[in-house]
This record gives sequence, C-alpha cells and structure tokens, in this order.
Amino acid sequence: MPNTQSYAALSATSALEAYSFDRRNLGENDVQVEILYCGVCHSDLHQAKNEWGGSVYPMVPGHEIVGKVTGVGNSVSKFKIGDLAGVGVMVDSCRTCKNCQESLEQYCAEGMTGTYNAKERNGTGITMGGYSTQIVVDQRYTLHVSPKLDLAAVAPLLCAGITTYSPLVFAGVKKGMKVAVVGLGGLGHMGVKFAVSFGAEVTVISTSPSKEADAKKLGATHFLISTDADAMKKYNSYFDVILDAISANHDFTTYLNLLATNGKLMVVGLPIESPKVQPFSLVTNRRSVIGSCIGGMQETQEMLDYCAEHNIVSDIEIIKMQDINEAYTRMLKGDVKYRFVIDLASLKS
Amino acid sequence: MPNTQSYAALSATSALEAYSFDRRNLGENDVQVEILYCGVCHSDLHQAKNEWGGSVYPMVPGHEIVGKVTGVGNSVSKFKIGDLAGVGVMVDSCRTCKNCQESLEQYCAEGMTGTYNAKERNGTGITMGGYSTQIVVDQRYTLHVSPKLDLAAVAPLLCAGITTYSPLVFAGVKKGMKVAVVGLGGLGHMGVKFAVSFGAEVTVISTSPSKEADAKKLGATHFLISTDADAMKKYNSYFDVILDAISANHDFTTYLNLLATNGKLMVVGLPIESPKVQPFSLVTNRRSVIGSCIGGMQETQEMLDYCAEHNIVSDIEIIKMQDINEAYTRMLKGDVKYRFVIDLASLKS
Repeated sequence: MPNTQSYAALSATSALEAYSFDRRNLGENDVQVEILYCGVCHSDLHQAKNEWGGSVYPMVPGHEIVGKVTGVGNSVSKFKIGDLAGVGVMVDSCRTCKNCQESLEQYCAEGMTGTYNAKERNGTGITMGGYSTQIVVDQRYTLHVSPKLDLAAVAPLLCAGITTYSPLVFAGVKKGMKVAVVGLGGLGHMGVKFAVSFGAEVTVISTSPSKEADAKKLGATHFLISTDADAMKKYNSYFDVILDAISANHDFTTYLNLLATNGKLMVVGLPIESPKVQPFSLVTNRRSVIGSCIGGMQETQEMLDYCAEHNIVSDIEIIKMQDINEAYTRMLKGDVKYRFVIDLASLKS
Repeated sequence: MPNTQSYAALSATSALEAYSFDRRNLGENDVQVEILYCGVCHSDLHQAKNEWGGSVYPMVPGHEIVGKVTGVGNSVSKFKIGDLAGVGVMVDSCRTCKNCQESLEQYCAEGMTGTYNAKERNGTGITMGGYSTQIVVDQRYTLHVSPKLDLAAVAPLLCAGITTYSPLVFAGVKKGMKVAVVGLGGLGHMGVKFAVSFGAEVTVISTSPSKEADAKKLGATHFLISTDADAMKKYNSYFDVILDAISANHDFTTYLNLLATNGKLMVVGLPIESPKVQPFSLVTNRRSVIGSCIGGMQETQEMLDYCAEHNIVSDIEIIKMQDINEAYTRMLKGDVKYRFVIDLASLKS
C-alpha cells in the first residue's frame, strides 16, 4: 500500500498538521498519481472546521489536484505512466443512475463520492484529498491535463474552473450577452475569465472598491459596488446572466433585480444561511435562480481542453504545504489573488 | 362618458360598497364591453386591503372579465358589436419595448398597466376593474372568448388560467413528465387541469388532507401532505416541475428537495414574506426557482383557444356583486372551490 505524506485536520478546532497514511493498492482500473500541485478551495476550510456538518477526522482536504501518473492498473486504457493527470471534486459515483450515465456524475442519485471526507463506495474507509504526495483514483474519475499550461495554475481549474464554466455554459452565455459576476474571489475570477472568453460583456459586482482595477485587468467592462444603491439601480433589469459566487451570507433579491427578461442568477456559492428571494422580484421578468454544482467528468475534461486551447488558467499564489494554516487565515480575510496552490514538493523534501 | 355601476373599496379598511363612475369615451382603438362575469382573484383582496402597498382609492378590483362587445372605435378591426370578449390582468403597456414587441407585455420595460389600481398611461386617472357593469379597453388588450364554454367559468382563465398555463408551457411540461402542484386553490386547481391535459403525471401537494378527493377528481395521480415528512421524503428528487401556487408565507426549500435533475420550481404565488432557498438544495440536481407573471396577450389568447378546444374551465361558485365582502371572508378561510365569479347581472337589475 503506497505510503503517503499529507497534512490533515485531526479535529474541527485543530490546525492542520503533518500526517501519514496508506493509499489503497492499485486496482485494475486505478491510476496512481504523484501530486505536484493542489489548489486550496474555500470548501476545504469549511469542511476542515466542520462548518457544513458531517466532517470525519483525520481529514486530508484538497480537490484541485494535478500530478503525474506513476502507476496504472491492468485495465487502464486512458492513462500511461508519465502522463499528466488531474483529479477534481469527486473520485467516484454509482455509475449506473441516469445522471451517471449522462456524465452528470455530480448529481449522482446516490450522491457522488467526494475526493475527501467521503465514504469509499466499497466501505473501506474515508477518502483522503490532495494535500498529500500521491493519490489512487479510478481512471473514470481522472482527467487529462495539457502540458501547454502552467501546471500549478491549472490545479484550481479542477474545482473553481469547472464550478464557474459549467453554469455559464448551462446559462447559454455567448457573444454579446451581458453577464455579471458577483464576488471576485477564487470562483469569481474564473467566472470573469470564462465569460470574457465566451464573448460576453462582463461586469464585476463587489463590496470592495479596491477590486476594480483587477476586474478590468481580468477583462471586465464595468465594475459595480453592491452597496452603492444608486449605481445598482442603473443596472436594474440589465443582465442576461449573473454568476453568484458569494460564499458569505447574502440576499438573492439584490441581484435578481438586475436581471432582464428570462435572466438567470446562477448560484455556485454556498453560504451557511439560506438566502431569501423576494417573489415579486422573481416573477418580474420571469427571472430564475439556478443552482450549479461543479460539472460532470465529461464537461470537466471539455473545460480543461477549452482552457488549454484558450490559454486560461487561475491567478495563483504558490505556498508550501507547511504554510497551509496561515493560508487559511489569509483566505478568511480575502487576502489572496485568487487561489492558493500548494506545491507538494514541499512535502517530499 | 359611459356611466358605470360598480363595487369599490374606498379605503384599505372599509368593506367594498356600491360606487358609480364614468368610463372614458370610446377611443378609435377601443372596445366597449358589457361585463357579464368577473372572477374574484386573491390579488383583488390583497390590493383592496393595500397589503402590497401602493393602493389608490376608490378602487374597483377585478381582472378576470368576460362580457359582450357593445361598442367599437373607428379603427377597431378585431371585434364587432355582439362578440364575446375577455379582459385580463392588464389593459395597456408601452407597446414599444422589446418585451412588448415580443408579446411579453406582462414584462413591459415600463411596467404593464394593470386592469385596476394602475395609472392610465395618458395620465387621465386610475384604471378601474371588472367589479363593474362595463369597461372600455384598447383592442390590443382585449381577447376573444369562445361561445363553446360556460362563460362564467371562463372568467377565471383570464388570470388564474394564464398564470398557471404560461409557467407550465415555459417549463416544457409534456406527456410523461412528473409534475407537482402545491396549493390547491384558484391557481392550483387550474394548474392541475392544464398539467393533466398536457399528459403529465400530476401530484397535488397540500396541507389539507380533505383535498385529496378533489385532487384525484381533477386528474391528479398522487396526493401528498406537505407536513408529512416521511411521505415527502419518498418523493425526494422525483419531480420534473413543481408549480408553487401558495400565496401564504412558506419556504421554497421543502419543495426544491423534491425536484429531479434540472427540475424547475415555477413560482406564481406571491407571499408577503420572502421565501428562503437553501443553497445546497439548489445546487443539488441543478435545480431552478423560476418566477412567472400571468402571460403575454398572444399567449393568453392561445390559452383561451386551448381551453375552448380541450373543454377546460375553472371550477366556480357564482355570487352576486352584493355578496363580495362575504366572499372575501370565505376566500381568506380557503372556503371556495375554487373561484368565486361575480354575476354582474346582479348590479344591473
């Protein structure tokens, strides 16, 4: 069993610390990946601290994984040793329900198996994530990564990338459409990049005036301060699609009012308190609030290929594994542009 | 100026009482309609009591109007004297915005002009509704009514009918789909009739066990008590479309959880407090909450024609104009199956 070095949360209140465990032996459909980089997602922090409930310890977070294939099972056809590979938010699902068959595995009827903090489907234990030196994953849930892009900056595509790509595609974003992205963080900055690349006129809506320059640099045409009621009013019924990537508690109605006829508020942020929806705002213009959860395996591969073709990666700050607790503290303050990525070399030396 | 008898609310706290006023003289595009029947919509009560704010008194409610054409302006081509005619929730809109041009007048960029309690676009006063002996309306906002159906039972189609027809069509309801209707009242019972006529498997969800027999009679296959957590759990992720026709305060999440992948919660009820939406429920299965407001003029005519073809009308209880206050009291208790309709002959004798 491949021994693996990692950083783990041992309880909801403890800092992450060095932890060693064994990955499963390579099954016939498995790919063994030496992890090179792993992005740090806000949900890592939520789950390490058990803010969503149901956390199991020790927990090794991390679901934005890129690395190099170091072993393949007998029946593996998709990968060979030396290939680059990516692993995202899920490592398994039932594979037989309608959603799995349509490669909407993220909506698996039995629930997908998360890359960490999830029960293995064969009952052998709890999945352990990418804050670690290696991982063993079924080839069906392993993705191809192009060598064309900066690998560290590709890592966040596996969650932040697909989480924003999928709802923009689902909402039919295309050239000439007016798209707003609310919340310029790890998710939001990817949303801006994708919406711009699809040809939309993009507006960033934020509480922080300091983000205007960055928003413009990312390709946004307009910038709006959500607390400036007059400015917001000018954009009443203006947008075709709004991507709501806010993880803090908020109200949907403020953003709903900015939607034009048949406009869609695509929700990917997961605040702890349930946002409210004013029914009059909803029926005006036949507006929609639509949730979206990452993307299926097929769409995630499509997104990675799209990024390689269009030279899209995440804006990142590389950290050592040992600096993860400080990174969490800074992330809580919004002090990151826009994603921390762990260089796993720091755990191997 | 055609003198008109009516019942009006003179303040938010007074009962409705007899009231006389003058309609405008027939303009060249106007149709004058002798009102035969007018449905009693829950929003009449909301507005008479100023529960949504912005009410202007005296107010003559009523926007589910059927009658007979008694006069036409010089440029009227759509109607001739003696024709049956219907007037619904709106009597005007800007006519030039994109939505008006696409016959989505209910989403007019300037706001549609309601059939009552709205400013006339020419600034001459406030619109007065169908609790009256006659009305003068531009032909563009006047509908054809088939003589094939019971006229009194057609009246509620002008609001309750189109309000439920439009979202079911928008959600793509068709044969074999699983549709739930929440709230079996004036709107809900029309929702059931339409969904059944479209070939869907229909479930009624209600707080009242007493409504099961009626639900089945209307064509529903299943009946669910929303407070029975075990029964509700069995329908988790089951429905393709849920029509939420509840006007009382409630939470969207309870119903969201019943939606399958890409399922749509179509909201037509207008509770006073903003319902909450649990983000995890929303992102699971990529669920949508979509508002819908009546329907455009073209779609309303299409709905009326569909009803004539498929023999669909509202279940009603006919009342005299003089009994309107008692009807409001009973409506508040849910004591009506399923729509009161005023026989305006009571005001003419």
